[in-house]
Amino acid sequence: MGHFEKVLKDPVHDEILVDDPWVWRLVNSAAVQRLRRIRQLGTSYLTFHGAEHSRFTHSLGAYETMRRVLIHLQRECGWPADERDRKLALSAALLHDVGHGPFSHTFESIYPVHHEQWTRRILQEDDEMQTILAEIDDEFANDLVGILQKAGRHPMVEQLITSQLDVDRMDYLLRDALNTGVSYGRFELARLLRSLTISDGQILLRANALHTVEQYILARYFMYAQVYLHPVTVGSDVLVLQILRRAGDLIRDGKLRELPQELLAIIGADEMDIRVSDYLALDESTLLYAFRQWSRSEDSVLADLSQRFLHRRLFAPITRTEPNSEEWAILRTAARALGFHPDYYVSGRTAEISGYVYRGEGILLLRPDGSRTELSRESKIVRSLAADTEYRIFIPKEMVEGDDPVCERVRNLVHWAMP
Amino acid sequence: MGHFEKVLKDPVHDEILVDDPWVWRLVNSAAVQRLRRIRQLGTSYLTFHGAEHSRFTHSLGAYETMRRVLIHLQRECGWPADERDRKLALSAALLHDVGHGPFSHTFESIYPVHHEQWTRRILQEDDEMQTILAEIDDEFANDLVGILQKAGRHPMVEQLITSQLDVDRMDYLLRDALNTGVSYGRFELARLLRSLTISDGQILLRANALHTVEQYILARYFMYAQVYLHPVTVGSDVLVLQILRRAGDLIRDGKLRELPQELLAIIGADEMDIRVSDYLALDESTLLYAFRQWSRSEDSVLADLSQRFLHRRLFAPITRTEPNSEEWAILRTAARALGFHPDYYVSGRTAEISGYVYRGEGILLLRPDGSRTELSRESKIVRSLAADTEYRIFIPKEMVEGDDPVCERVRNLVHWAMP
Amino acid sequence: MGHFEKVLKDPVHDEILVDDPWVWRLVNSAAVQRLRRIRQLGTSYLTFHGAEHSRFTHSLGAYETMRRVLIHLQRECGWPADERDRKLALSAALLHDVGHGPFSHTFESIYPVHHEQWTRRILQEDDEMQTILAEIDDEFANDLVGILQKAGRHPMVEQLITSQLDVDRMDYLLRDALNTGVSYGRFELARLLRSLTISDGQILLRANALHTVEQYILARYFMYAQVYLHPVTVGSDVLVLQILRRAGDLIRDGKLRELPQELLAIIGADEMDIRVSDYLALDESTLLYAFRQWSRSEDSVLADLSQRFLHRRLFAPITRTEPNSEEWAILRTAARALGFHPDYYVSGRTAEISGYVYRGEGILLLRPDGSRTELSRESKIVRSLAADTEYRIFIPKEMVEGDDPVCERVRNLVHWAMP
Amino acid sequence: MGHFEKVLKDPVHDEILVDDPWVWRLVNSAAVQRLRRIRQLGTSYLTFHGAEHSRFTHSLGAYETMRRVLIHLQRECGWPADERDRKLALSAALLHDVGHGPFSHTFESIYPVHHEQWTRRILQEDDEMQTILAEIDDEFANDLVGILQKAGRHPMVEQLITSQLDVDRMDYLLRDALNTGVSYGRFELARLLRSLTISDGQILLRANALHTVEQYILARYFMYAQVYLHPVTVGSDVLVLQILRRAGDLIRDGKLRELPQELLAIIGADEMDIRVSDYLALDESTLLYAFRQWSRSEDSVLADLSQRFLHRRLFAPITRTEPNSEEWAILRTAARALGFHPDYYVSGRTAEISGYVYRGEGILLLRPDGSRTELSRESKIVRSLAADTEYRIFIPKEMVEGDDPVCERVRNLVHWAMP
Repeated sequence: MGHFEKVLKDPVHDEILVDDPWVWRLVNSAAVQRLRRIRQLGTSYLTFHGAEHSRFTHSLGAYETMRRVLIHLQRECGWPADERDRKLALSAALLHDVGHGPFSHTFESIYPVHHEQWTRRILQEDDEMQTILAEIDDEFANDLVGILQKAGRHPMVEQLITSQLDVDRMDYLLRDALNTGVSYGRFELARLLRSLTISDGQILLRANALHTVEQYILARYFMYAQVYLHPVTVGSDVLVLQILRRAGDLIRDGKLRELPQELLAIIGADEMDIRVSDYLALDESTLLYAFRQWSRSEDSVLADLSQRFLHRRLFAPITRTEPNSEEWAILRTAARALGFHPDYYVSGRTAEISGYVYRGEGILLLRPDGSRTELSRESKIVRSLAADTEYRIFIPKEMVEGDDPVCERVRNLVHWAMP
Repeated sequence: MGHFEKVLKDPVHDEILVDDPWVWRLVNSAAVQRLRRIRQLGTSYLTFHGAEHSRFTHSLGAYETMRRVLIHLQRECGWPADERDRKLALSAALLHDVGHGPFSHTFESIYPVHHEQWTRRILQEDDEMQTILAEIDDEFANDLVGILQKAGRHPMVEQLITSQLDVDRMDYLLRDALNTGVSYGRFELARLLRSLTISDGQILLRANALHTVEQYILARYFMYAQVYLHPVTVGSDVLVLQILRRAGDLIRDGKLRELPQELLAIIGADEMDIRVSDYLALDESTLLYAFRQWSRSEDSVLADLSQRFLHRRLFAPITRTEPNSEEWAILRTAARALGFHPDYYVSGRTAEISGYVYRGEGILLLRPDGSRTELSRESKIVRSLAADTEYRIFIPKEMVEGDDPVCERVRNLVHWAMP
Repeated sequence: MGHFEKVLKDPVHDEILVDDPWVWRLVNSAAVQRLRRIRQLGTSYLTFHGAEHSRFTHSLGAYETMRRVLIHLQRECGWPADERDRKLALSAALLHDVGHGPFSHTFESIYPVHHEQWTRRILQEDDEMQTILAEIDDEFANDLVGILQKAGRHPMVEQLITSQLDVDRMDYLLRDALNTGVSYGRFELARLLRSLTISDGQILLRANALHTVEQYILARYFMYAQVYLHPVTVGSDVLVLQILRRAGDLIRDGKLRELPQELLAIIGADEMDIRVSDYLALDESTLLYAFRQWSRSEDSVLADLSQRFLHRRLFAPITRTEPNSEEWAILRTAARALGFHPDYYVSGRTAEISGYVYRGEGILLLRPDGSRTELSRESKIVRSLAADTEYRIFIPKEMVEGDDPVCERVRNLVHWAMP
Repeated sequence: MGHFEKVLKDPVHDEILVDDPWVWRLVNSAAVQRLRRIRQLGTSYLTFHGAEHSRFTHSLGAYETMRRVLIHLQRECGWPADERDRKLALSAALLHDVGHGPFSHTFESIYPVHHEQWTRRILQEDDEMQTILAEIDDEFANDLVGILQKAGRHPMVEQLITSQLDVDRMDYLLRDALNTGVSYGRFELARLLRSLTISDGQILLRANALHTVEQYILARYFMYAQVYLHPVTVGSDVLVLQILRRAGDLIRDGKLRELPQELLAIIGADEMDIRVSDYLALDESTLLYAFRQWSRSEDSVLADLSQRFLHRRLFAPITRTEPNSEEWAILRTAARALGFHPDYYVSGRTAEISGYVYRGEGILLLRPDGSRTELSRESKIVRSLAADTEYRIFIPKEMVEGDDPVCERVRNLVHWAMP
């Protein structure tokens, strides 16, 4: 008894240990609790039904991974030497996603909202967050923001938060693998952590962990190829995008009545004019609520797109080369013929699997003799993982499966085979 | 190729196989997709952060478990002999939860809504559902309703859907254990399934599976004791209850303006007057949206209760005997003194861990010589699991932790020790 | 770098950490390495093919469990306060099985060999062991022996080595479950360890770990019922017993020529006259080698029994009440009629599942208010686990399955049903 | 009841199902039971203590994998169409390792024994095996031998037994990973099996399983790099080799008295003169027994080498380029100076990690349009896995760690750093 200790059961790490009262206060802040209402993998749950976990559980997992990293580095290398650095590292891990909104990447692609920007504002402007962080010390919030923006003042903490070998990725690979039910994302976490070391103020891996880090890099490759960029998921993102575009167009024309107040505060406004409290009021339940209202909208495009999302009648993903202008015309004409507005129902997207690219940011290995080398120089497998892209067209299934002659023309274009 | 097959990756069963097009149509119906927006364990995620999985994933799991049970029984005992019984069993497993609303048990305790009733109405009145089921045959929907209401016309299917040994429980124990991160709910599913047999039109277990079924019964016991009835979770349910009670009281007085249309259709109405489409429009995102609106309500009680839920400032659970009227008076007085409306901030609840109770519904074991026996006669462990209850008072933490003299009086009453 | 660290990958604990050079020396001593050639579960691998793991891997696992227990207790309760107690606890965990021979319990039931006795002698008389332990300090070996014999001088270490809640059992339940492929032996190890505490020089569990310890007690119950006392395994033990009995009888009569030197030194001798080096030369490969030699023996009983073991033609286990003298006569006559020597081919055995029995040695729970209670007072499940026994007859399958009229008489006696 | 069914619990596949009496007879034959006494991974258990599993458990696992493959292919592609092919495939999987002796690869490198040869002889000459196989039909044993020798008469069964995508490898990767405690060997078995298909009498993978088969190929790569070719394990193999070489030299000179009869029948003889029953009498317990006898030999080289193996004082593995003749001379001189016979204590070995090499035997992928492609053409990762070799010198640790000036010279040569 006596000392503070909260133990949270976790499907990935078994137990997550919170033994600092200030960490517990951060966990229970409204800004962090809000992450319970934002899914970690956006629309992936429409492809992998188990992917229902939130950014909140991932944030706890990133915190726990950092906690274990720090215990190892402190014992092994004497860093962090002072308590403040430890606190910065732990809170950065816990709070690194705090600025994310619902369906972040899609949302940001059309609205003037950037989660890095919002992370900064939440840490510096939200009352509750300010109070908790100021209790640590006056400069804590600012230093934290610096770390999350890679300002370079705390290079090792920054490396552990955002690099090719950070606690964010370590947790999400394992967690996403567990929840989607695939084994692709697994790697030897304990061994990887134990192989971290420090030399000249930089975090490196001991060279004998070569195969362990190869396994980790491949886990990322497989998760991108199999889960994150699954064509059905990309198609769901495209659908969300089209709903938001249509809603935006209607708002601009003053034609959208069913609009939750939380969205109004965001969609109409200039980013800097949005209040932090308004941004924090926005989560996935807001959007789902809006989608359901819009599914009864008088605007038939908005209503149909929203229904498609709610009832999982997603766009069909078609993998082929990017159409030329003539082919685009065929697709748009066909859409129009079947009653689909081509601006919202016909689109293409490039998915990019980034490889392991070394641009001064690669993973460094430390040999027993003290010399350094970079991972891709040592590993043929890692070198083989060059970036790759895949182009896909997204249209309603009806456009390829119907009996109408225009469908026949679309089928000729896409070589459609019912999967 | 050629034949229909969808394989869904699943964290519990590895793969869920859908090889009937009509099952796939049911899975993709709006009524079933809606279950993605209702959590399997209600407010448990506020205690076990991993418990974010939905009734949709559980429904798929119950379907898959049934699929495996039927393969076994068909090979072993020749049942189901006809395809229609197989279809009834599979669709009953998939649809058994389709009538559930958000925070079902709490919701039902104050509003005129019963999920069994709604299951029936959805199967018989929802257009899309009607179409899919009628394609099988005209009587299919009615027979399905019969099974889910235990009408007795398909006794073996009913047993597999609702009994002490049903596919519902088999899936949820494993799934809830995985997601909460505890090992308590695990049992030997493959062995249990293989031990099912049929005799005289009844499903029984082979007697040599005694220890396997003991393990399964204990899994349930542990999950109730550790997860389902966790005091923090019960406290979260009580908080939801109080929010809904307060909202209802304000509606009756015509004082609640911030009210999503979906709720209005439900809360004001008589159950039989609610349209199926209105009921299906109600899910957890509706309630979360309402709670967030209410958190800015002019009614300070509703606003405060809603904020408590959204930001996880839950009621403190205090385990002790039920207070007498004098003690209730002390608690209510203290609440009032601290500005808490006692009708909404002071309450008690009994949690009941049901044991394995034999009332003509126990699990029957079949001995090699053909004789039968009932599980609790064979197992001392199972007999030891009598039903049990625990009483708890739920009040705001501020009432026990403050410096005010009234807090001192409350502390004397509850022997509060900061956990 | 610099400091000593060996990390061993382990299927149960993921990683086993050896960070003391003296522990590594003990691990690599001949006496401990010998445990690689003695299976943890004796003949169980003939029933559960995966049960091939050795006492060596279990000893490492018990050491690792102790290491984690001590880290927890040191942080939580400041014990062990001195380094020597820590060393005693770690080495006791690693060495607790060092005196075991091949098929220990069977071997000990007919030869003058007691593993506790041999543990003492190995620690005090083996040259290499003496050297390693004396380097710690002169009294270390004696204190270690005291702990393993529960002399009472180091009560808390003794409790952690031999009690209802010791590191031995914690490791073997998990390890045996993993290797046999059953889930019955699993329990929440991390939570159990974290719940250990110290009060008045005694190790107790915090009362809120009630369900965790119930799960652990049940894990033991299930492993006994399903694995350790599996009738086929008991039958294999009986077979080993009969082989060793027959060999002993032949030796006494001077009729056994094929006798490995290692066995000669043991079987003929008085326990105290056996040299430690001779005892350490004895392991399972010695017995397997002897069995194979004996399988070609001129003595047809010894040859047949040995072949039965090597080729897994085990005795048939028949569960019924103990035969009366008339029934025994029928069995022995039948054996003789079929050419089986009744003294070696007809026998009975009682298997005993011990319950959780409280005789001053129960598991104590510590309540938040400092009061104590004993587990079986708090848990109906634990109380229900009274000791239980089951009687079985072991005879060759041929005696029940043959066409001979005597087989018919045996079948009437045993109500044989081909399983 | 009625029909035959044995279910074996398994740590990898959960349950192994034997539902043919003739399979059960094969499992219980002396030749298959003998595999319980031969470890799957030879001396690997001296590096990864959990690697204690036998070729018997692996053989059951390969059988079970084949059983699942056949169920899939039969349902999907109608093959095997006749029961005999199914029996050939199942028995080939179960028996593929039956000719292996103890420490196979090392043993075969110096004695005239080839496990493929012995597999043939056991199937065709062992009485019990002949009886069981002849009960199926007269040509069964010969056809089985043909399959195991890739005679080409049953190409698809042969492919499933020995190819880059065979049930042997599928089981051993998973099993070795589980037992050693590493995650490297895991892959999506169920998905891989489901992706197998048949076209033009050849087994192929559906092209959409590209990432699944990449994961499987990488599992093999990691297991080779991390487990199978671990330098400590290679050093243990070298030690066994030197023991057997020394024993052979002494036998040739008539100087070895302590020689188990089983070894005498093998080591002295010409392979074709060895009787099957003598070969089957040889297993790891024979060699361990011999090593222990030899550890007390009058020949100090044999005695020391044997003790090193039994007590795990293994050779030190030193990774560097192959020494030139001058460097060899330095090493041998140093050995001699320290009393080590250089012919047995100084040696080098090249370990070879084979890549995925396509020589008419690659894994073929079948595209939806019916065209074929070969895996390494589609996967950059697989292409990157070129074969690789690593050279190591193995000498006693004493040669590098001592204070003697010769040790200094050795250290200069090998750049020894205490790991």
